[in-house]
Amino acid sequence: MTVKLYELAGADEDLLFSPNCWRARMALAHKGLDVETVPWRFTEKDDIAFSGQGLVPVMVDGDTTVSDSWKIAHYLEDTYPDAPSLFGGETGKALTAFYNNWPNGFLGGQFVPLIITDVHACLDDKDKSYFRESREKRFGKTLEEVGADPEAKVEGFRAALTPLRMTLKTQPFLGGEQPLYADYTVFGMFMWARCTSPLSLLEADDPVHAWRERLLDAFDGLARRAKHVTAA
Amino acid sequence: MTVKLYELAGADEDLLFSPNCWRARMALAHKGLDVETVPWRFTEKDDIAFSGQGLVPVMVDGDTTVSDSWKIAHYLEDTYPDAPSLFGGETGKALTAFYNNWPNGFLGGQFVPLIITDVHACLDDKDKSYFRESREKRFGKTLEEVGADPEAKVEGFRAALTPLRMTLKTQPFLGGEQPLYADYTVFGMFMWARCTSPLSLLEADDPVHAWRERLLDAFDGLARRAKHVTAA
Repeated sequence: MTVKLYELAGADEDLLFSPNCWRARMALAHKGLDVETVPWRFTEKDDIAFSGQGLVPVMVDGDTTVSDSWKIAHYLEDTYPDAPSLFGGETGKALTAFYNNWPNGFLGGQFVPLIITDVHACLDDKDKSYFRESREKRFGKTLEEVGADPEAKVEGFRAALTPLRMTLKTQPFLGGEQPLYADYTVFGMFMWARCTSPLSLLEADDPVHAWRERLLDAFDGLARRAKHVTAA
Repeated sequence: MTVKLYELAGADEDLLFSPNCWRARMALAHKGLDVETVPWRFTEKDDIAFSGQGLVPVMVDGDTTVSDSWKIAHYLEDTYPDAPSLFGGETGKALTAFYNNWPNGFLGGQFVPLIITDVHACLDDKDKSYFRESREKRFGKTLEEVGADPEAKVEGFRAALTPLRMTLKTQPFLGGEQPLYADYTVFGMFMWARCTSPLSLLEADDPVHAWRERLLDAFDGLARRAKHVTAA
């Protein structure tokens, strides 16, 4: 049976760039499930009102609706225990929480000043004022102020990846020899950038670059084949 | 059999404040091993020359010498598989690497400006110039410049704990219901501060504070009983 996934799309409905949706897409692929994407825009709240909230990803699996990427991952793990594990057991599940929170509570904020104006430029016209107003309220600055001179911020961004880089120097994935949900939570952020921005974030000899390449290739190149602004 | 652990001490040989040594102490307690501490100072390189390098912790277990807290944790896990696991299996071991690198590559740097002058003040006189010279070379500034106005930096420090705080809002330990080595790697940094500095780093209603309290109480209050500058 095919799982339906409501994903944030840009002006081009094939441009699917949400970091949280990428987490869900990778988790679904990890579980070997077929997915039908429903492109969705920020302002189409009515279309996902059935989920009881207003953000994507929203996953519909038969009679079950789950929103929030972290809840989707747990739902998939519980519902498809015979498919490859996303966490590697109960201890792995507990240890993965920080991997979910590090991008949400830190790393995402490092991407924002580099790509926020590019993200805005990708949006469907009907989403642009919603995005601008909600984000400018959150940041207390205009998008242009937050996103000014992105090239000058790349070095600082790379420094913020230090713990990730140290880890990926000694193992191919955060989950070890194979990727786990811990990898997808972080990788989703890099897909956000790849899909929306032409900025070159990583140097070719960076272990983070090699890790990103491995994840772009995972699941028959699911992420690599996805529409994006540049090959990054 | 008692394991011997060479640990960094201050002017007071009972003041054992190294974050890396605390990682090893907590790991040894987790495995239920008896430990004999050998107080060591930075400049006593000859006393640990047998380990083939010049830093502590150095652990001696029978005929085996292991230095480096990360290697000690792996040694203990491999050598004492019937004692409680530090990692929770192979996947947990892989997932713990980032928990080791986040303090080393990020969090430690958040503590430095708050406590570095207090750390220096705790040192044995014979260590003070070694510490000053090596750290000032690393930072490119004097200790006093790095450590100026610590109170003003507490708010920024607390913000840097966001991913940790988000995680500990939903589970008692990074490892889940019980602490694992992932907890000890981060907790070691807090012991570094507790042992050396009177600065109040955490608010009482912070989930990170509650987690630190739980770890201070672990193993019959091993960490809480340890000599320190203030009750923090």
